[in-house]
Amino acid sequence: MSDGPAIGIDVGGTKVLGVAIGGESVIAERSVVVPKEAPELLAAIVALVADLEVRLDCSGAVPLGVGLPGLVDREGALRASPHLPRVVPWEAAAALRTGLGGRPIVVDNDANLATRAEVAWGALGGVDTGLLVAVGTGIGGGLVLGGRLAPGAHGFAGEVGHMVLDPAGPPCACGRRGCFETVVSGSALARRAQEELAAGAASLALSLAGGDPGAVRAEEVVEAARRGDALAGQLIDELADWAAVGLLNLTNVFDPERIVLAGGLVSAGEVVVEPVRRAFAGLLPAAWFRAEVRLEVARLGSRAGAIGAALAAREAERCGAGAEGSPATATPP
Amino acid sequence: MSDGPAIGIDVGGTKVLGVAIGGESVIAERSVVVPKEAPELLAAIVALVADLEVRLDCSGAVPLGVGLPGLVDREGALRASPHLPRVVPWEAAAALRTGLGGRPIVVDNDANLATRAEVAWGALGGVDTGLLVAVGTGIGGGLVLGGRLAPGAHGFAGEVGHMVLDPAGPPCACGRRGCFETVVSGSALARRAQEELAAGAASLALSLAGGDPGAVRAEEVVEAARRGDALAGQLIDELADWAAVGLLNLTNVFDPERIVLAGGLVSAGEVVVEPVRRAFAGLLPAAWFRAEVRLEVARLGSRAGAIGAALAAREAERCGAGAEGSPATATPP
Repeated sequence: MSDGPAIGIDVGGTKVLGVAIGGESVIAERSVVVPKEAPELLAAIVALVADLEVRLDCSGAVPLGVGLPGLVDREGALRASPHLPRVVPWEAAAALRTGLGGRPIVVDNDANLATRAEVAWGALGGVDTGLLVAVGTGIGGGLVLGGRLAPGAHGFAGEVGHMVLDPAGPPCACGRRGCFETVVSGSALARRAQEELAAGAASLALSLAGGDPGAVRAEEVVEAARRGDALAGQLIDELADWAAVGLLNLTNVFDPERIVLAGGLVSAGEVVVEPVRRAFAGLLPAAWFRAEVRLEVARLGSRAGAIGAALAAREAERCGAGAEGSPATATPP
Repeated sequence: MSDGPAIGIDVGGTKVLGVAIGGESVIAERSVVVPKEAPELLAAIVALVADLEVRLDCSGAVPLGVGLPGLVDREGALRASPHLPRVVPWEAAAALRTGLGGRPIVVDNDANLATRAEVAWGALGGVDTGLLVAVGTGIGGGLVLGGRLAPGAHGFAGEVGHMVLDPAGPPCACGRRGCFETVVSGSALARRAQEELAAGAASLALSLAGGDPGAVRAEEVVEAARRGDALAGQLIDELADWAAVGLLNLTNVFDPERIVLAGGLVSAGEVVVEPVRRAFAGLLPAAWFRAEVRLEVARLGSRAGAIGAALAAREAERCGAGAEGSPATATPP
């Protein structure tokens, strides 16, 4: 793979993160709060790119990759996104080409790009058949086959968050009930805590949220659990039990050699990861077969999506537009 | 691919089917009732092979593929099989090498082999990203990526029947509850009919089974539905609703361009397939995105597994043992 400079942008739920890479390292990093409308989002990306280009000792426009939190089709359009309701539908690749032409531009789903980054620089390195499961506000994912991201027929593969685990479960933004992300996510943890507090349960999470049950987020629950709070620990165990069900489902369908856990909730560390590991290990002996699957934590943290975007852009420059298996690429005319 | 002669054997729940192929057609076909113990099973396969070899106008031992209903590891050992409890664990490839040496021998999971056959000769031809879901006594499956069977890290990929859809559902042979195959399978249909009959419901299926509720199998329910029986139709609709949940889960995870339905229950025809199609189409608009996924019926029917076994053996002969991506292969010393 080329090791030239490239810029990667990851549009998340709360911020837009941009990185400039060269060789095998991140040279510069910038972030801004994520705007709510498409024109402002485009302007924010253009400004980030200009800022990062200055940091790169490189004349001319460098390859650009952009990750978006939702369904990105193979033409680089954002077709659905619970996090950016006022942006969708957005012809992202076309808009970026107008504002930032003269360079290879790649647009893809954020979890797919994070998966590419973990394959290239992180916990999925050297793995032939693997999975990335990113647990944050919701769940995103990416499939790895033959050591490469498998994008699916329309670029939508890896939407493991929308696997129904419990038909009687909470309603999901996708229109079904009991999807994986309705029981395993930061939102799910916050909702469960608020339910329990409303029912009169006591928890340190309440005072951490300033005494307002409606203000309790996953962050407060995790922090309370870290300090030994019983309810918070119990809610994380409950989440871990559901996580184990979903991960074993995926193991049966996909037979991965490694599953890498990523995303904001996982970056909370062992307070969340250890119960998931324990619940998953507890299910395996009861399963039809004991798969030799390793559960690991992502290595690139919250920068994985942006790094993956930059790597995808670099690869697109090398391969040219329309290379087989590459995400939506817009090259200059 | 070579088009020389090859023999394929498919060990099913009730019979052992053998085919001899040459070019792109089946030249001969034989079957026997499936023995319950490993030595008798081996003897039955040896006899079938001898019988089929006579039919092939071919001197010398021809390549042999064997499909087994259960988890077959990459060394060709049958590690688990609810249908052959007295056979497992069975070092199948090693045993076959002893009895039928001097030729390439391939051993793999039956659904994986059926998937290979549908890719080569059937409904998965020309498909880059696809799925086979075989609904019979249980559910087997196979994943297709890049136009080839994706076996997973240990040869166990495609076990879609052991994706939990309902944690409060019926117990499964795998040790969990509410797996896909506990609500969508011939066994599930028979169990539901027996439950309803025991609770006093009326159905033509009862008289078709000679008046004994415990003797009602999926076959009687399907036949009753074909004749317009209300309860039977309702039970098939219920099964179809669960099938749609499972198929949409797999669509979200895998983003296939085509899903091919196969297996005994599907071979019952439109009486089963039409309700599944309708239920799946009904779920898609409510889903997060409307995937363009085609639902089709397998073309090779009950011979898919045996044909796939023969094709895999032919490919193994061409590629030599241990070719990347090939199933367990035992070559002569």
